[in-house]
Parts: sequence; structure tokens; C-alpha cells
Amino acid sequence: MTRNVFSYHKAPRLSLVGAGPGDPELITMKAIRTLQTADIVLYDSLVGKEILNYIPIGTPALSVGKRAGLHSYSQEEINDLIVELALLYGHVVRLKGGDPYVFGRGGEEVEVAIRNGIEVAVIPGITSAIAAPASINIPVTCRGLSESFWIVTGTTMAGAISDDIALAAQSSATVVILMGMSKLEEIMETFRFQGKAQTPVAIIQNATLDNERYVVGTVDNIVRVARAWDIGSPAVIVVGEVVRCSELVQNIQARTNINFQYQ
Amino acid sequence: MTRNVFSYHKAPRLSLVGAGPGDPELITMKAIRTLQTADIVLYDSLVGKEILNYIPIGTPALSVGKRAGLHSYSQEEINDLIVELALLYGHVVRLKGGDPYVFGRGGEEVEVAIRNGIEVAVIPGITSAIAAPASINIPVTCRGLSESFWIVTGTTMAGAISDDIALAAQSSATVVILMGMSKLEEIMETFRFQGKAQTPVAIIQNATLDNERYVVGTVDNIVRVARAWDIGSPAVIVVGEVVRCSELVQNIQARTNINFQYQ
Repeated sequence: MTRNVFSYHKAPRLSLVGAGPGDPELITMKAIRTLQTADIVLYDSLVGKEILNYIPIGTPALSVGKRAGLHSYSQEEINDLIVELALLYGHVVRLKGGDPYVFGRGGEEVEVAIRNGIEVAVIPGITSAIAAPASINIPVTCRGLSESFWIVTGTTMAGAISDDIALAAQSSATVVILMGMSKLEEIMETFRFQGKAQTPVAIIQNATLDNERYVVGTVDNIVRVARAWDIGSPAVIVVGEVVRCSELVQNIQARTNINFQYQ
Repeated sequence: MTRNVFSYHKAPRLSLVGAGPGDPELITMKAIRTLQTADIVLYDSLVGKEILNYIPIGTPALSVGKRAGLHSYSQEEINDLIVELALLYGHVVRLKGGDPYVFGRGGEEVEVAIRNGIEVAVIPGITSAIAAPASINIPVTCRGLSESFWIVTGTTMAGAISDDIALAAQSSATVVILMGMSKLEEIMETFRFQGKAQTPVAIIQNATLDNERYVVGTVDNIVRVARAWDIGSPAVIVVGEVVRCSELVQNIQARTNINFQYQ
């Protein structure tokens, strides 16, 4: 006589998934396939509603917040949650805006999971650091204008602006700053101090979404321009000569009546 | 009496599409949808066979080469080809490895197209600069280790770029070098000169593909290590403390028998 053994235990695992910059079509095939096998989803508040539609009906999904100034869960609580839910449910998908390893604290979540015996997979996403400038036709690199780019966060562990910004400001790199709007004035001061007062700057808010807006100016005037047009977070700040590419295309468009379209 | 007018003329347009780092599932929904509406596809030699399978049967597709040391078409010829084919066929999809605006000379192609009255759309892709380190569990940023990352090309390592390395060496930035294998020795010499002889370095070849291989070492020994293991192009070079995250995960894995899996 055989005995039927039913086991409901699922192996605990964590998939760290990048949701991309916002546009629901700028997500990878792999991210969608992974969401379809989730037992539970933990998502950041920056992940848009249309992206959440990829989560199958019936799969529990929990927002863990983390919007600037409004932390519904601390990083430590999120780490604990990942471990607990993986042991309870099985496959936890941690869905993050952009790429999980670009200022996403993904490294910490992977480490905690691995230490607790949980298998981990990482699925990269398109970072807004590159997609936001592209959406207004600013290439982060361009022959003859910029042969490298430097991606910095405006908010560091210490709360101050990163010392790296002062070094990046001295370089020939296009500098892209994420999560920097609350420190825009200080950041521009740093560039001005490095003799970059006339360097062009673009700020793109809600990049790749229907409500995308942007302003273009210089290190010297962008604070006033952003205020005048009421540009706020979440936004990507781009400092460098490549910003002129956007204007170039617009000038040609104005003369030729041709559209540059970001899809 | 009405006259039937049949027009076969299609409006010329160009879509610059990023194919991602190699893994055929690391392509976006938008890229696939765009390929399905192409009248002709021009692709770089770094775009893999599996990605080309997304091109519908019957759509002409042309390799324009551009592998290191083997340029089947010059950039100027590609620019001309885009314009001619758009006027002849209609919708030209220019398919590039990674992201079209990360060292892809996409800016030049967009400018030429716009100047010739051709509508342009840009669809970003996942760059190997971020996905290659992620594939061996190296986050480009990590709290307490790196507050920024800097992406450089190895093909113009002379002059200004060397000065930038001196700045990066003083910062907490992770430095990611694309197309740098032919200048590996010179690049490491520049880091050594900045007192970074012991900084960890990883080189990832064929990242995210089945034949991915990698080596880990230091600024001091990575040239020997890469030679010993016969690591060559195409490869991504990562210099910075974050490289230790990869080893950390491996050490925990060795003790706990848990897999880190890159999907």
C-alpha cells in the first residue's frame, strides 16, 4: 500500500525585478514572465498602476512605499518582510522602479535573502538615468560632446549631497543625478563652483509617462526655471553639453515640421 | 465617377531600438512591438541570433557589422543607408545591442534622419554596463560602498578620459568600462597610478548569454588573470569595491549551498 504525501511547502525564493522607467511597455519579457510565477509581490510606490496590471489576478501584492519623505516601511522592515514572506509563500517578487541595482538597495536585499537560505534571481530593468534623457532626445554619450557619463544620487546615506558630485562636476562626463530635486540648489552651486555656470541642464519629471514634463536651462538659471514651471520629484537631472542635442533636434523640427517621437 | 488612387508610398521613419545585453528575454515589450511593424531592419553584429528571431518572417534584415576591428560599414555609410532605406521602404528599425544612446552613436543617426525629413522614435534598451555586473551579483551602487557609477568607453581612453579616471579614482564611484579589452593594460596602469592597485576588478565576457564567463582580480593582477583564463571581447570591465559583493554571495553560497541565479 502506498501512502499519498501532499506537500504544500514551496521552496523560498526571491526575484529582484526592475520595472523600468515608467512606460508599461518599457519592461522586459523576463520581468513579465517572472511576475507570472510570483506567489506574492512587494512593490515600491514609484511603480506605476499600469505596470501592476502585469501581476496575475489573485496574486497578493503589497506596496512597501518608499517615496521621498514618506517611508511606509524602513529598509530593515522590507528586508525582514522578504525573508518572512519567502518562507511563508514561496516565490517573492520584489518589484522596483528602474533597475534594482541602481540606487535601489537591491544589494542589501539580496544579501539578507542569501544569508537566510533563500535563492535569489536578479532581473535588470531600464534605468530612468538613461531613458529619461533619451525621452527628450538627449543621448548620455555623443561623439565629440561626451565620451562618458556619471550617474549619481542626490540623497546619500548621510543626508548630505554626495562628494562624488563635486568630482563628477570637474570631469568631462555627462552627469545624471537621480533623486536630486530636494537638493537642486546645492547641486547647482557645486557645479557653479567648478566653473560650470553656463553648462546646459535638463530636468525631466515623470519620464516616459503620459504626464512627462521637462525644462532646459543652464547651471546658473535652472533653479529659477524649474520653480517657474513647477517641476518637482520624481525627476532626473542631466548636466552636460549633450543637453544641446535636444534643442538641435527641436530647431530642425521647427524648420522642417518633422516629429521626434519617443515611444 | 470616382477615381481610385492607390498609393504605395509609406512615410519614411526611423526607430532606434535597443536590443538589450544579449539574453533574448532581456528585451522590452516595446522593442518587440516595434520590430513587428518594421519594413526593414538594420542590425549590428553584436545583436544575437535569438534576438533576430523577433523580426517577422518576410521582413528584410541587413547586418551592418561594426564588430571591433571588422567594420563592414562605416558610420557614414550606415547614416546614408538609413536615409535611403527609409525613403525607399518606409519604417526602418535600427537594432543595436544594449541601449542605442550608450556609446551607440545613436545621436548621429537621429540627427541625420531628422535633417532628411525622417520621423524618429527611440526605444531604450538594457545596457550591459549595468546588466553584466548584475549577472554575477555586482550591484553598480551599494550603500556604504559606492554612491555613484561612471560608465566609460575603452576606445577613447586617451587624453581627457584619463583625467576623468583620476577624478573617479578619488570618488566612491564604481567605474564600468565598455569596449576596453584591447586597452586593458593601459587602463589598469591608469588606476594603479592613482593608488588603486588593490581595488577589485571583474571582467564579464558574453554577459547574460549561455556562454557567459568572468574573472575577478585586482587592478594589479587582472591582466594576468584575464590572460590565464583567455577572457576576451566582448566584455565589460568593472572596477570598484562593489566587486566584493559577488565574492560575498559566493562565500555564503559555499557555506549554505544556496544558489544565486541570474535569470
